[in-house]
Amino acid sequence: MNTLEEYTELLARIDRINSAVSLLQWDQRTKIPRDGHAGRAETLGTLSRMAFELATSDRLGALLDELRGRDGLSPVEQASLRVVGRDYARHKAIPPDLFERFTVARVRSESAWELAKEASDFPSFSPHLSEMIDFARQFAELFGYEDAPYDALLEEYEPGMTARTLRSIIEPLREALVPLLRHLIDDGTPPETSFLEGCFDVSAQRQLAARALQAIGYDFRAGRLDDTTHPFTIGIGPGDTRVTNRYHEDLVLSGLFSALHEGGHALYDQGIPDELRPLGIADGSSYGVHESQSRLWENMVGRSLPFWRHFRAAMVDVFPALDGCSAEEFYAATNTAQPSLIRVEADEVTYNLHIMLRFELEQALLSGDLAVDDAPDAWREGIRDTLGVEPTCDADGVLQDVHWSAGMFAYFPSYMLGNLYAAQLYATARRENQDLESSIEQGDPRVLLGWLRERIHRHGQIFDPVELIERVTGEAPSPVHFIDYLTEKYSAVYGL
Amino acid sequence: MNTLEEYTELLARIDRINSAVSLLQWDQRTKIPRDGHAGRAETLGTLSRMAFELATSDRLGALLDELRGRDGLSPVEQASLRVVGRDYARHKAIPPDLFERFTVARVRSESAWELAKEASDFPSFSPHLSEMIDFARQFAELFGYEDAPYDALLEEYEPGMTARTLRSIIEPLREALVPLLRHLIDDGTPPETSFLEGCFDVSAQRQLAARALQAIGYDFRAGRLDDTTHPFTIGIGPGDTRVTNRYHEDLVLSGLFSALHEGGHALYDQGIPDELRPLGIADGSSYGVHESQSRLWENMVGRSLPFWRHFRAAMVDVFPALDGCSAEEFYAATNTAQPSLIRVEADEVTYNLHIMLRFELEQALLSGDLAVDDAPDAWREGIRDTLGVEPTCDADGVLQDVHWSAGMFAYFPSYMLGNLYAAQLYATARRENQDLESSIEQGDPRVLLGWLRERIHRHGQIFDPVELIERVTGEAPSPVHFIDYLTEKYSAVYGL
Repeated sequence: MNTLEEYTELLARIDRINSAVSLLQWDQRTKIPRDGHAGRAETLGTLSRMAFELATSDRLGALLDELRGRDGLSPVEQASLRVVGRDYARHKAIPPDLFERFTVARVRSESAWELAKEASDFPSFSPHLSEMIDFARQFAELFGYEDAPYDALLEEYEPGMTARTLRSIIEPLREALVPLLRHLIDDGTPPETSFLEGCFDVSAQRQLAARALQAIGYDFRAGRLDDTTHPFTIGIGPGDTRVTNRYHEDLVLSGLFSALHEGGHALYDQGIPDELRPLGIADGSSYGVHESQSRLWENMVGRSLPFWRHFRAAMVDVFPALDGCSAEEFYAATNTAQPSLIRVEADEVTYNLHIMLRFELEQALLSGDLAVDDAPDAWREGIRDTLGVEPTCDADGVLQDVHWSAGMFAYFPSYMLGNLYAAQLYATARRENQDLESSIEQGDPRVLLGWLRERIHRHGQIFDPVELIERVTGEAPSPVHFIDYLTEKYSAVYGL
Repeated sequence: MNTLEEYTELLARIDRINSAVSLLQWDQRTKIPRDGHAGRAETLGTLSRMAFELATSDRLGALLDELRGRDGLSPVEQASLRVVGRDYARHKAIPPDLFERFTVARVRSESAWELAKEASDFPSFSPHLSEMIDFARQFAELFGYEDAPYDALLEEYEPGMTARTLRSIIEPLREALVPLLRHLIDDGTPPETSFLEGCFDVSAQRQLAARALQAIGYDFRAGRLDDTTHPFTIGIGPGDTRVTNRYHEDLVLSGLFSALHEGGHALYDQGIPDELRPLGIADGSSYGVHESQSRLWENMVGRSLPFWRHFRAAMVDVFPALDGCSAEEFYAATNTAQPSLIRVEADEVTYNLHIMLRFELEQALLSGDLAVDDAPDAWREGIRDTLGVEPTCDADGVLQDVHWSAGMFAYFPSYMLGNLYAAQLYATARRENQDLESSIEQGDPRVLLGWLRERIHRHGQIFDPVELIERVTGEAPSPVHFIDYLTEKYSAVYGL
């Protein structure tokens, strides 16, 4: 066996263990019986550790070193060395005992957060948050950075992105969104949504979600749809990418759009070639690019008039009581803007403003400019300044998101980048495919999906996100397309 | 870490990998999307190999050697050394390259069998059967035996059992069953079953199966019920034992009794203490003892009058059209005897006669007394002599069962032993619990289940099957109780 063969065999082995881990996780969140949880945690621990041991093994390090010196590697093989080598270096940068202490502290911190959120009791979570910040600072130093420690953490989710670049994107975005929101609220006519109030049978909603997935081209022969508490999409292995979803009787759009959102993630996963697996690059280019695929199908497609011209029939088929509603009415009702407290429920106009606040706060927490105990007030102040709303309790404020409790700092920007990438990609797709919107109106997702497969999906992790976006759209990541998209759509819906 | 700790940690690690393997298998047979199968096979291969490598590791051998010399081990620890040591020795007896050749040949053989069965084409399977017999002979020599090579293979499924002992059980059993069957058919009045003909909604049958599981005490908090093609029960891990089942619209009893059968296996699994896992003895005592638990709940309970006095209400609740039928009628209809070709569809009277034929044939195949090419005729002759029926094609004859194609020789007797153990255990349970049948009539499975938990389940693999049966019933495995049980029940149902 030559070096390259040994390298791909080792990566394939890791990929297969991770496939088992994925199934264990999917099952844990969809099917597992109540009494199975404790044992499942042990099994997951053992399997994850086995994958981690291989991914940090000296043998992998030696193989990487040997291959790096080689001539004649293909571009895909070089991409593999870049991605696998980067992950290897990051894993090895953290001493095992520090990582173990972090793992233990994180479990405690997540539990503390859960209780603290339930009781809206920030002080009980505060010491854990301090500890997590402390770990994040240590990790940043160990990973290394050029400009700011934050960049070292950002690298985990958006390789190549920096806090400085983020700021250069955020400023013009904020300057556009804040007045747009004010303009809509002060001068616009919000669309009618009352016809979506009432009680919508959950099993009918489940059917609707399946039809929405079919409508965007999700392949049920290579996946399935199941119920869960917090929707997620998970790649189990070749030919097996699963979507999960939840439904609320009184929120029929919530279940539909989360299905479209997860479906977008799933289309990306289904489009990544299995040949990239034994090279360790069969994932999305970054969290932001992954999010761009979910947001693109959820928002650019799912909240568009062409989509509703087609999908109205499915909606009315499943809920005959909505027969009186036109495609235009559905379309308008899915595009409202309203300042609100909870990020995950925010609309397209306000969503990124939530992210900006978190981006500022987590930078300040990491640098020490903001004391942990002052975080609830800083959050309150920030959301009031940005959106003019104020939480009555910290559960709806600084405690609402799980990320920091799990030590995931610098994760939030990926959500925002996902929205921007989505708009930028969609603008390019429209430009390059004159029939794109008419095909969507006819219920055929293949023009768009084919384009995404060719331009994004099939590359897996071959390109880092900024390079990928530049290659596809001809320009660096920018907020311009998102601002244009939002202004145009919302102005029309709000009659401005 | 001392030796015993290292030993239990290694076994716990194997147990957890096997837990992942179990989930991968369960999912493969219940939930996996069509395109996921190829990748799943790879993942299963990798994980199974990892467990196998640990279970055959030199380290485990050294730990076993160290612990064997120890004084002061508890009886449970000694049982662990016996069972784990036996499996280790059997695994190590086969040279890795021989085992690998077997594994590859087995996959080919199983595929060939599937095609051959479909086309009823024995000659296309014949060379594979020869090959499997050849491997079995080699394995038997490597495992070693006192009396007959067959015993070395039997040890895998029924530790301590021999062909000689089996023959001493089979002869009196045959001498009782053959005339009983003739008497029933010639002189008896078969019960009315026509009210069970017709079309029974599958989702209602699914409900009925769940109620049957509840009726026998299956704990849904520690398990679940799903659809599959060939029903099975699988322990995924602590607190997680899953039942799968299938339903035919025109065979309402088939789905019900397979649920009870699988439920019996599941009750055994749910009753084995998790503390035995890191000792590697958290399984059933043998295949036969496991089968005794499924057959006991399926037949001694599920086909009894007390059970139907209670369960009739559930049946009628789910299928209101059956409201006119009495408990006595249901009971009688579930106890018919009829010679037939297919083992898995055979009734309690004829089932063991199928097994006896396979026992004879596989011994003759292994010894060489029967040439592979003569097997179809030998099967035809045997079934005609025993049951007076004759297959029109080999698919319904020698090709009907998968076992030999997978190299599983000496497996069939466990099915028969399961029936005999079940009757022997049930006779003891009735003797020791005067209220057993009245409790079943009242819909309370706890008297029987509690007794089985105490006498059988909680011991896991601490006792080998013959010792276990003797401890619980006070006598060696015997066909007498089964013959008595069957004669009494069937004479009553057939009005003799």
